[in-house]
Amino acid sequence: MVRMRGFKERASVQDAVRSIERSNLRRLGCEFVDIVDACGRILAEDVTARYDVPHFDRSAVDGYAVFAEDTFGASQNNPAILKLVGEVEMGEKPVEMGKGGAVKVSTGSALPKGANAVVMLEYAKELDSFVEIYRPVAPFENVSKRGEDVKAGDIVLKRGEILQPQDIGILASLGYERIKVLRKPKVVIISTGNELLKLGEELEVGKVVDSNSYMLFCAVRFYGCEPMLYGIVKDRFEDLRNAIEEAIEIGDIVITIGGTSVGKRDLVPEVVKSVGRIMFHGISIKPGMPTAFGVIDGKPILMLSGFPVACLVGFELLFPHILSKLTGVRIVKRRGEVVKAKLKRRIPSKAGVRTFVRVTYKDGFAEPLMTSGSGILTSTIKANGIVVIPECKEGFEEGEVVDVVLIRDIVSSEDVPLSDHPYQRL
Amino acid sequence: MVRMRGFKERASVQDAVRSIERSNLRRLGCEFVDIVDACGRILAEDVTARYDVPHFDRSAVDGYAVFAEDTFGASQNNPAILKLVGEVEMGEKPVEMGKGGAVKVSTGSALPKGANAVVMLEYAKELDSFVEIYRPVAPFENVSKRGEDVKAGDIVLKRGEILQPQDIGILASLGYERIKVLRKPKVVIISTGNELLKLGEELEVGKVVDSNSYMLFCAVRFYGCEPMLYGIVKDRFEDLRNAIEEAIEIGDIVITIGGTSVGKRDLVPEVVKSVGRIMFHGISIKPGMPTAFGVIDGKPILMLSGFPVACLVGFELLFPHILSKLTGVRIVKRRGEVVKAKLKRRIPSKAGVRTFVRVTYKDGFAEPLMTSGSGILTSTIKANGIVVIPECKEGFEEGEVVDVVLIRDIVSSEDVPLSDHPYQRL
Repeated sequence: MVRMRGFKERASVQDAVRSIERSNLRRLGCEFVDIVDACGRILAEDVTARYDVPHFDRSAVDGYAVFAEDTFGASQNNPAILKLVGEVEMGEKPVEMGKGGAVKVSTGSALPKGANAVVMLEYAKELDSFVEIYRPVAPFENVSKRGEDVKAGDIVLKRGEILQPQDIGILASLGYERIKVLRKPKVVIISTGNELLKLGEELEVGKVVDSNSYMLFCAVRFYGCEPMLYGIVKDRFEDLRNAIEEAIEIGDIVITIGGTSVGKRDLVPEVVKSVGRIMFHGISIKPGMPTAFGVIDGKPILMLSGFPVACLVGFELLFPHILSKLTGVRIVKRRGEVVKAKLKRRIPSKAGVRTFVRVTYKDGFAEPLMTSGSGILTSTIKANGIVVIPECKEGFEEGEVVDVVLIRDIVSSEDVPLSDHPYQRL
Repeated sequence: MVRMRGFKERASVQDAVRSIERSNLRRLGCEFVDIVDACGRILAEDVTARYDVPHFDRSAVDGYAVFAEDTFGASQNNPAILKLVGEVEMGEKPVEMGKGGAVKVSTGSALPKGANAVVMLEYAKELDSFVEIYRPVAPFENVSKRGEDVKAGDIVLKRGEILQPQDIGILASLGYERIKVLRKPKVVIISTGNELLKLGEELEVGKVVDSNSYMLFCAVRFYGCEPMLYGIVKDRFEDLRNAIEEAIEIGDIVITIGGTSVGKRDLVPEVVKSVGRIMFHGISIKPGMPTAFGVIDGKPILMLSGFPVACLVGFELLFPHILSKLTGVRIVKRRGEVVKAKLKRRIPSKAGVRTFVRVTYKDGFAEPLMTSGSGILTSTIKANGIVVIPECKEGFEEGEVVDVVLIRDIVSSEDVPLSDHPYQRL
């Protein structure tokens, strides 16, 4: 704590953040929303697979479904000759076939009943109603078995995850139409000051348009919250108390603008003290020193300076912490950020092709995901980043440091360093 | 161009992007929206100040408004003694005073008529109905003159700017209730494939739920566009053509999913060719090779693979370029990104205080803004970044390389390198 003009003492940023983290706040409730409206929201329950994925045995290649045992011993010079009994296109019901039969299939086609493997197109030749097979296949070769990727009942997305577009795709593929997420925090914004005019009122000498509340309205929306403008309140104790009490009733978070300094008309912290608790008033930042934070009835109230830049700095510095406290979810890195990581395994690629490899990024390391054949769903969930291999390279080596583009927000419900928000990088 | 299995030729990423940039697309129209709904939108007209800012002469400090000439020669030992004739608080109409008078004022108070300067509180002493002044002030000292920051008619925000919360504050302070922005592009998403079930339909062997369209719906929204799900269309030429023609009529951009490979049921590019123009089909990326782009009736159509990861990669790689082409605005860096910059001037700060300094970032350099006294509005518009000076330092030196947190998207309507989007960093 440092003494200074006007303020008896000022909290350091660290103390201020700690006092937000230690304050006793009500947790947010939940709601069900349509999955397309759930993107960017915080998942409020574990999501389990409602059925196996894939939910039927299917071909992993274009080719001919066969009974594997019929192909044993087949070779270029001594092909197995099978009877072509039909075709199953993607989306069609599986046909039935007996031993000695073959059915033409595409990637994703349901495996015909009686078949247990698929021979790739390039190792077979169609001749009228027969197919020559030039290579043996083992049982279940080139088949994605039912439940191979995910079994019914498996947890596929965890509570606390911030839902991304790919998660919404997964929810759809599992048949979820609505999903339980945390409510959007309702943030009530109160402007204070006798000098303020409402937008649209005629200008008067001595008065200025209340602009901060519109600025904060938009800033609050950027954080995925639901802002609400309370309007302008005069610098009168009673008026301020009524407004703040009403706002606390309506909102999950209350923000006041102005009236936080130490002049005779700076009444906001005093009012909050009369109905709740002030956690700190005055903080060692510039601009934004006369910023305060309090709790009324288990709900947070952030008191910001009326000077526009101080208002925005105080907001950007402290609001993310209030949000973390309220939701229990702390964003450590944002989707779209690029981070450096050391590769845990070599990733090959073809020269001349720009290759996008899904990786799991953690603590400075990137683990490339195996994505061949099946496992599409699970690999999409596990991946949180993409490594882009440029056309001029043939892959990256194990141990190489590469750029990872994050494809989901990285969250933590544990304590993480205060460096989690851009304004707090230093 | 490289030859490969299935595709006669594939465009390089560079060629693909160039062909989007060179395509002949209709520009988006404009609309008026409430300023709070304009945040994140692209400004469609230059915004001019409707009045001077400040719009009245006002005090820049707490103190006593005086007629400057009355204080000439004043000193600690020989104070000027002026008659206290009143007080103007912030928001009050200015009073009138004559020569030899003094009026108590606060920062932001309207300057009383007859006064032309303000003596700071610390150089004055109030004694009953008189004030002793211990220091002379020059005419207009400690006064923010009307129009000092911005003159009526000045351009304050330029067409093409992506509006940020601070801009919305500025628009409010200038009395704008609604503002002209580019329309949100309407993006119609068509799913194709006989194997697709609608979300909510009962599972069948051989079929899978259409999940990509829900994923893209959300991804499209992240780009500030308005997505619309057309639904599922079977792999039939007529059906596809009807769907695409209808979508092109409704939307500003059309996206199709699936049916872009070279199988007998991959009809989408062929359909597009029959009603418009294919700019490329097949691109040197993995996954996502069977991606195509075309133009129908001056509107872009992006044809994506039905494989979820390929679908998302193709989208993230190409959609930003389609958007840039449509809006004429290219985002070079995003708000919230941290960039390194060399300081053009020293910025001092006080030890123990975390200091946030507005800077103008350009081409690797950061120019700190002068923010004392007036110029609040203009400095807020000019600043596009914040440098945070930690508590342990007393400022940064000229030439030092520092982190700049961007507080607005950096846009360019000129040609910039293709490295502008995260997926294209390499």
